[in-house]
Amino acid sequence: MTTARLEKLNASLGASGLDAVALNPGPTLTYLTGLHFHLMERPVVFLVARGQTPAVVLPELEMLKVEEMPYPVQVFSYGENPSEWEAAFRKAAQSLGLDGKRIGVEPRQMRLLEFRYVKSGAPEADYPDASDVLGSLRLRKDKQEIEAMRRAVRVAQSALEATIQSIKIGMAEKQLAAELVTQLLKHGSEPELPFSPIVSGGPNSANPHASPTERKLQAGDLLVIDWGATVDGYISDLTRTFAVGQVEAEYEKIHRVVQEANTAGRAAGKPGVPCADVDKAARAVIEGAGYGQYFTHRTGHGIGMEAHEEPYMRGDNMQILEPGMAYTVEPGIYLPGRNGVRVEDNMVVTETGSESLSDVPREIRVVG
Amino acid sequence: MTTARLEKLNASLGASGLDAVALNPGPTLTYLTGLHFHLMERPVVFLVARGQTPAVVLPELEMLKVEEMPYPVQVFSYGENPSEWEAAFRKAAQSLGLDGKRIGVEPRQMRLLEFRYVKSGAPEADYPDASDVLGSLRLRKDKQEIEAMRRAVRVAQSALEATIQSIKIGMAEKQLAAELVTQLLKHGSEPELPFSPIVSGGPNSANPHASPTERKLQAGDLLVIDWGATVDGYISDLTRTFAVGQVEAEYEKIHRVVQEANTAGRAAGKPGVPCADVDKAARAVIEGAGYGQYFTHRTGHGIGMEAHEEPYMRGDNMQILEPGMAYTVEPGIYLPGRNGVRVEDNMVVTETGSESLSDVPREIRVVG
Repeated sequence: MTTARLEKLNASLGASGLDAVALNPGPTLTYLTGLHFHLMERPVVFLVARGQTPAVVLPELEMLKVEEMPYPVQVFSYGENPSEWEAAFRKAAQSLGLDGKRIGVEPRQMRLLEFRYVKSGAPEADYPDASDVLGSLRLRKDKQEIEAMRRAVRVAQSALEATIQSIKIGMAEKQLAAELVTQLLKHGSEPELPFSPIVSGGPNSANPHASPTERKLQAGDLLVIDWGATVDGYISDLTRTFAVGQVEAEYEKIHRVVQEANTAGRAAGKPGVPCADVDKAARAVIEGAGYGQYFTHRTGHGIGMEAHEEPYMRGDNMQILEPGMAYTVEPGIYLPGRNGVRVEDNMVVTETGSESLSDVPREIRVVG
Repeated sequence: MTTARLEKLNASLGASGLDAVALNPGPTLTYLTGLHFHLMERPVVFLVARGQTPAVVLPELEMLKVEEMPYPVQVFSYGENPSEWEAAFRKAAQSLGLDGKRIGVEPRQMRLLEFRYVKSGAPEADYPDASDVLGSLRLRKDKQEIEAMRRAVRVAQSALEATIQSIKIGMAEKQLAAELVTQLLKHGSEPELPFSPIVSGGPNSANPHASPTERKLQAGDLLVIDWGATVDGYISDLTRTFAVGQVEAEYEKIHRVVQEANTAGRAAGKPGVPCADVDKAARAVIEGAGYGQYFTHRTGHGIGMEAHEEPYMRGDNMQILEPGMAYTVEPGIYLPGRNGVRVEDNMVVTETGSESLSDVPREIRVVG
């Protein structure tokens, strides 16, 4: 499978005018090799040059991983002293003849650490952004990938249901987040979660990217839970919003609006339509209800091995949806200093429309 | 506290010939602001130029965090469309007069994503590696920081003791790792663990950086567990090695050797001696026993907000230990294709010597 993926990359290098790509540890490297490397203070780089045996530069203490490589690779290893590292990168670049070439990189993934070492071996090369080329390799999920995502959704949903039962007024956000993580693992998530869950109550729920705090849940709070699981390296990313006891009428109203926007956004996705349409469908509902200015982010992002990847559901993104693409639909309304709502599902484009992998109740539920 | 840290940075900028630093989300940004930002596809950069009001460039949906800043900052925000982002960075660089200046960066932390945006605002600037300057800010831990690390060790140790009881022959490494993470959270770790625990049995234990697999524990295995907790943003990072039932005599022997090396390494650390001495003391024991070639990594690394930071316990590192520095002592012996051992503790340099924050039994214990 991974050999086929390497061939796919080689083919798209040709088509996109790149001579090579340089990858550091992250989803693309794992997608191409099946191996996990740590992102650490020692640089690890995987180099694929068109039509050549790929090369890996890595610390000696990671050498055992090379044996697990699914195809032959050239290995350039270095010891513990950083002064030796550059030489290993220079040898690798030389062996692949990289200098002066077009070497694609992933700016969202590659650190200056790895980049400067790669550049020391190929100082006259160009380093264009190859995120699109590399992202498109992973863009259309195959059956096996979708099955893993489906299981990641299932694990997340049962973990949520188990967690809801323990929610009480007076519980700190952090405490609830820890309980949710415990349940995610108990229900079968891999220990490396896609992201640390967001558990935000009351005014904190009006911050779409809040980290859990020591704030205790109070009656009248909205409670936003944004969480996900990892199964076989694939992730889920869901959000539901709860009412802690009785909440203001306007909070119930914005939840209704967001839920309708979520429904509209989910309905809009199908093969042949641009990502923009998904965003517009969800946004129209919120704007129609007069809350447009409080929906401060795009409607969704792609998911797969990462919690944020292509395709992005933005009003200006004309990228066309195709079967196998997977993304979130997550409209929200955030009333600054007051409370916020978000409802998020995980979608996969099918041959004729799209399917929501998630189905845990979207209605506002009362907890505490 | 964080205002004092900003002043400390301003002072060391002057001393190190830097005009400014550019930081992306990570420990140094958190150390200086007390705030956590996500590392995501939208670039967030914190810019500190000597003697000026610091600037932050961030997406509009992160604006609420700006209110939590402990001191005044200039804010440059951007919307969802990536084509607008560069302008925000250009404005920030202009306001601070960054072009042509020396702007320190952290190559281990900064991605090409943020770097290219910063550079678009200051194309003629130099971007030297400021890891040492920035790392040294965090190098000597104060009482409050050490107290947090002490609690992170305590949480990790009680989580391990709770986990040990459930270890059984036939249990998969992944299953054991999930149980350990559950116990870490139950015992009080923050959900964002310092790293995903390493749980490696049998031949996998001979790989110092193994990820947990589906392999089931067998009688005769050595079992390496490398784990840690997070408390108030500070971490612990420990390793213990167990015997699953009865193990070969040589495995008991290499455990004895590693444990002695750990003791020697812990004893070597005190104010005024170079980091190299800690490495040499541990390595001498392993070399003396004839296993030198199987101790394939340095003896330790600094810890604090990160699992790997300065100072590094390498044989060639002449950096002098000072009170408040914190690091691991983690010698190991890895017999390729067979089994491996590592014993790791967390040390803090005191006024007169050094103290091990960890004290969970180091002896080989039989499980399963």
